[in-house]
Amino acid sequence: MARLIITGSNGFIGRHVVRHLVARGHEVHCVNRSYIDNDSAITCHRLNLLTQTDFLGGLMKEIQPHNLLHLAWSVEPGTFWNSRKNLDWIAATLNLYRAFVAAGGKRFVLAGTSAEYGWSEANTTGPMDEIISEKAPKTLYGKSKYTLFNILTSAASLDNISLASGRIFFLYGPHEKPGRLVRDAIVNLLQNKIMETTLGTQSYDFMHVDDVAAAFAALLDSPAIGAVNIASGVDQPLTEILQIIGNQIGRADLFQFGARPMSNDTPDRLAASVKRLNNEIQFKPRFDLESGLLDTINWWKKNLEQNL
Amino acid sequence: MARLIITGSNGFIGRHVVRHLVARGHEVHCVNRSYIDNDSAITCHRLNLLTQTDFLGGLMKEIQPHNLLHLAWSVEPGTFWNSRKNLDWIAATLNLYRAFVAAGGKRFVLAGTSAEYGWSEANTTGPMDEIISEKAPKTLYGKSKYTLFNILTSAASLDNISLASGRIFFLYGPHEKPGRLVRDAIVNLLQNKIMETTLGTQSYDFMHVDDVAAAFAALLDSPAIGAVNIASGVDQPLTEILQIIGNQIGRADLFQFGARPMSNDTPDRLAASVKRLNNEIQFKPRFDLESGLLDTINWWKKNLEQNL
Repeated sequence: MARLIITGSNGFIGRHVVRHLVARGHEVHCVNRSYIDNDSAITCHRLNLLTQTDFLGGLMKEIQPHNLLHLAWSVEPGTFWNSRKNLDWIAATLNLYRAFVAAGGKRFVLAGTSAEYGWSEANTTGPMDEIISEKAPKTLYGKSKYTLFNILTSAASLDNISLASGRIFFLYGPHEKPGRLVRDAIVNLLQNKIMETTLGTQSYDFMHVDDVAAAFAALLDSPAIGAVNIASGVDQPLTEILQIIGNQIGRADLFQFGARPMSNDTPDRLAASVKRLNNEIQFKPRFDLESGLLDTINWWKKNLEQNL
Repeated sequence: MARLIITGSNGFIGRHVVRHLVARGHEVHCVNRSYIDNDSAITCHRLNLLTQTDFLGGLMKEIQPHNLLHLAWSVEPGTFWNSRKNLDWIAATLNLYRAFVAAGGKRFVLAGTSAEYGWSEANTTGPMDEIISEKAPKTLYGKSKYTLFNILTSAASLDNISLASGRIFFLYGPHEKPGRLVRDAIVNLLQNKIMETTLGTQSYDFMHVDDVAAAFAALLDSPAIGAVNIASGVDQPLTEILQIIGNQIGRADLFQFGARPMSNDTPDRLAASVKRLNNEIQFKPRFDLESGLLDTINWWKKNLEQNL
C-alpha cells in the first residue's frame, strides 16, 4: 500500500503493530536504536532518535516514507510520569517530524495518552472525548504529549501534513513489563504468590495490546486527523478486572486488596469515549476483557520462565 | 556576580544585553554559531544550537554556568511568524535546558513574545497581564514560544530551576534590520524617500532595544519566576509613532498612510501590563518614545552608509 516508518517497533505496542502493518500490505521500515530478531517482512534501520539527529535527514531521504507511525518514547514503569526524558522526546519528535516533512512525507501518526486529559475532570465528567482543556495534564508525561500534539497540529496544517494522535488508555497483554498491574497480577498468581494491591476502586478502560496495535494500524490507514482515543469504551473498577484474572487462574484468594495505599497522583476514573474510533476509523476490538485476559494468561503460562 | 551563558548575543537585543550583563559584574560566556568582533570582556564559544546538540553537554560542563539567558531564535522579518524553524528552536531550547540542568545550572531565562497572547483578546481586554488563555496564540511563532514556556515551567519546578520568560512586545533602536517598521521609516525619511504604510491605526507598545536589553539583565538578576512582560506600559497608534519620527527628521510629509493594506493577521491593539516589570523587577526604562526615537534617528544618521 504505502511505504512507512515505524519507531518503537520493539516496544510493547510496536511489536504487535508491525504484524498488522505487514498484513495490511505496507512496506514497513523500522527505526530503532538496537536490533532484535528482525522480521524478514520488514526493513530495520539502526538510529538513536535521541542522539543521532544529524543522521535523520539522510535516512528519511533514503527511505522516503509516505507515512510515519511514531511510538518510541521513554516509558519506564514508575518513573516515566515525571521523567525529564519527556523533554528529550519532545525534541526528538520535532526533529523526526521536520525530517519526515523535508523528505516528502504525507501522514504522521503519533502515540498520545489518556494522561493528556485533566484527571480531575475525568473523575466527574465521565468518558473523555478528544477535547481537552487548558493546563489539564497533571504529569510531565501528559503535558509533554499534549504540548507536542498541539504544536505538531499547528505545523501540520501549514505543511499540508495529515496528522493524528492515538490516545492510549490502559493496556495489557503478552510481553508486558514488570511493575505493571495486569502483568504483575497474572505472574504472581501463576506462581502462587500473594498479590498486594490498592483498594482497587479506581475505574479504568483496559484494552488488549493487540487491539491497541490493530487500532493504530487502522488509524494510520484512515484519513482521520486530530486526536482519537484508543480504548474499549468500557471502564471497570480494578477490583473487577483483577477478579476476572483471579477466577481464570483459580487463585483469586491471593489478592490482598487495600494492602497498598491509594495514590493521590492517579485519577479515580479514566473512561474513554470511543465514538471516533468506532465511527470514523470503524475499528472494533477483537477481545473483550474476559477473552483478552484469558489470552494473556495463556501466553504467560507458556512464556513465564523466559520472561521473569 | 555569577557565571552565565547568553545565546543570541549577536542579535538585535543580545548585543545590547551583553553590555548590561558585563556592567552588572557577571562572567559572561556567549554561545553563537559564528563569531563577530568579540568583546574582550566576554568569552565566546562557537556552537550551532540547532545542529550541534552532541557538543552541548560538554560545553555546559566546561562552563558550568549558574544562569542562562536564551535569546537565540530564528526571527527573519516577514517569514518567522509561521516558519517551521520555530519547531527546530523548541527542540534546540529543550536540549539547551536539559544540558544546563545536567551541568548544575540554577536560573534559566528565555525570551518570550507578545505573540503568546491571544490577539483577539488583546483587542478587547486592554493591557495584557501575564495570564494567557488556551489556544490563544495565532501564529506558529507565538504557539511555539508559549508551548516551550509551559513545558519548561513544568520541568523547572521538578528540577528546582528558577525559570522566567521575558515577553517582548514591540521594539526599535540601533542595528534594526530592514523590513521592520521604525527602521524602515527612519531610513526612508533620512534618504528623502516616500514611506508607504498602512492606515496606522493599530496601537502597539514600543520600547527602545537598549531598555529591552536592560530589562532582560534586570530580570535575570531578579528572583522572579514565570512570565514578565517587557514593555513600556504605554501603547500608541502607529500614526503617532511615525509622526514623532517625521517631526524629528522634519519630513513627516513623506509618509503615505493607507498606501498599504491593513493585515488581517495582526492585532488592532497590543498593550502590556508592566506591573511585574515595574514592581517585582523594579525596572524603569531609560527612554520614553520621544527620546528613544531621537536616539535611534541620531544613530542612523551616523551609521546609515554602512548599514544599508
